[in-house]
Amino acid sequence: MARNSTDFKAVVLAGGSGERFWPLSTPQRPKQFLSVFGSSSLIRQSVARLEGLVKKEDVFIVTSRDLVDATRAELPEIPPGNIIGEPMRRDTGAAVALGVGLAGDGVVGFFSSDQLVAKPEAFREAVAKAIEIARSAPKIVTIGIKPDSPSTLFGYIDPATKKFIEKPNAEYAKKYVESGYLWNAGMFIAEAGTFRAAFAEHAPRLAPLASPETLREADLDAIYAALPRISFDFAVMEKFPAVDVVPGDFGWDDVGSYLAFDKYFPHDGDGNVALGAMKAVDSAGNIAVAKGARISLVGVKNLVVVTTGDDVLVADKASLSSIKKLFAK
Amino acid sequence: MARNSTDFKAVVLAGGSGERFWPLSTPQRPKQFLSVFGSSSLIRQSVARLEGLVKKEDVFIVTSRDLVDATRAELPEIPPGNIIGEPMRRDTGAAVALGVGLAGDGVVGFFSSDQLVAKPEAFREAVAKAIEIARSAPKIVTIGIKPDSPSTLFGYIDPATKKFIEKPNAEYAKKYVESGYLWNAGMFIAEAGTFRAAFAEHAPRLAPLASPETLREADLDAIYAALPRISFDFAVMEKFPAVDVVPGDFGWDDVGSYLAFDKYFPHDGDGNVALGAMKAVDSAGNIAVAKGARISLVGVKNLVVVTTGDDVLVADKASLSSIKKLFAK
Repeated sequence: MARNSTDFKAVVLAGGSGERFWPLSTPQRPKQFLSVFGSSSLIRQSVARLEGLVKKEDVFIVTSRDLVDATRAELPEIPPGNIIGEPMRRDTGAAVALGVGLAGDGVVGFFSSDQLVAKPEAFREAVAKAIEIARSAPKIVTIGIKPDSPSTLFGYIDPATKKFIEKPNAEYAKKYVESGYLWNAGMFIAEAGTFRAAFAEHAPRLAPLASPETLREADLDAIYAALPRISFDFAVMEKFPAVDVVPGDFGWDDVGSYLAFDKYFPHDGDGNVALGAMKAVDSAGNIAVAKGARISLVGVKNLVVVTTGDDVLVADKASLSSIKKLFAK
Repeated sequence: MARNSTDFKAVVLAGGSGERFWPLSTPQRPKQFLSVFGSSSLIRQSVARLEGLVKKEDVFIVTSRDLVDATRAELPEIPPGNIIGEPMRRDTGAAVALGVGLAGDGVVGFFSSDQLVAKPEAFREAVAKAIEIARSAPKIVTIGIKPDSPSTLFGYIDPATKKFIEKPNAEYAKKYVESGYLWNAGMFIAEAGTFRAAFAEHAPRLAPLASPETLREADLDAIYAALPRISFDFAVMEKFPAVDVVPGDFGWDDVGSYLAFDKYFPHDGDGNVALGAMKAVDSAGNIAVAKGARISLVGVKNLVVVTTGDDVLVADKASLSSIKKLFAK
């Protein structure tokens, strides 16, 4: 397949705070740098699966300023000037606007840096379809993921009405899945001009970032300090009238928590998953990740135990969403 | 108090496999070397609390051969020749016999190297009383500990009949405590000649070790290889007719498991005990011992989490007796 569109540019959003996979990931090496899922880091995989859709010099990475060096080192094939650091976190609204400004013109697609795709060829087909639509109409096209569970962790899209819906509770999630709604995986494809028009109309404070002229002359620090913290979904997608949806069914996984280890690694007879040196006695259903030290489990169930040598995390599987509270302290 | 009896000799038994406090203790540094309880190691405390009862040159340590160097380094004030290593583990029967052989004559007392005593002065008073009895009659005198719970971890002594009773089940333990029975803490005091006579009568295979003459000429390796594995309680105390008991109430604790940390260290508001760097979120009733790495707990209850940098143990408090299964694997 040689779909490389001369006018397509891809922006990979690579923020991340390193909390959900702490201590494997850290603020200095957030989730996209994890290389336990597959043979390379998640961000390398994210860039690699765009191959055939876009030329390397048309791939842009929006990350945080303190991750620019690590990202350039991880992706030496991307022109260093295409890897840009935001001076502070301002959510995806600002990141998408900056990406549009960097890409300049043509069709621009936004992708995450820390997700898995089991069937990259099917992924590329869906994106190619979205590019086609975006090229022929002033629409923002999103790839809607076919849900494999009534997850409450994602927003949904109604493919009939193209309506964006916030993360629901369990009851609504079930209804949405039964109604054929799709997951919003944060993939957006549109002409740069369409994005710019959408920002100008619905999020004018973000619009200057989306303009290459402004961007070139600008002091990003000053611009960012004045920006609102707002997601692209909330700032634009929930309001923009010309949305289209391409359904995607390509084994997408946002690798949202340590439970991903249960999905991608083999279990022993007691349902324990071990990466690295682990011994278990009278223990079942645990995930052990041992880097730099050995882990021994005695009489414990459904725990996530992770060591990096310097740090040891012991969390109940049902409490993984509370890992972030460690950092609030 | 200057009770130093010119004829009293103390033998401290310092074996240990390092399993119950693994990975804090190891086969190379078993429990008696732990220095977290009090300001020095348990073996230093065990020797220190004999001060006033016995001169340094009359203190003997029976340990395993591979611990001799570490023990001499830990107790530089004890003459190195008084610290003897058994070539192999043959239970307390052999260790007591060897101690009698080393001590030679006079009144000999046996003590453990890995127990705590909260009131050393009361301990010394009890031992002095036992020495007095042993000096005046051919009896083996034991210090019986006043129980603070119906423990199933210790043997009991009926102070009326002087009968030794094996570790009971919970039902019997309750009965014994209600009947005023005392714990057998493995402290025995008798004239060397009384010990020798008891071995000759009830455990003749151990008797050669108890004789200084045999010991001096002997090849310990050959003797030990032929010895039975048998405890001193079972080999001698349960059969010897001339037993006496001195009750002891001096805050004795055998520091039998990680639960000792709950007893000796302060708790946070959620009942967690931490030694070293620990953060806890939504977690209660845990014991965390962090050496060489930090521990973070999220949503977990009643666990013991110990790290030494190289090893991480995560055990349920109710399963601590299964730690030894890690080594059987």
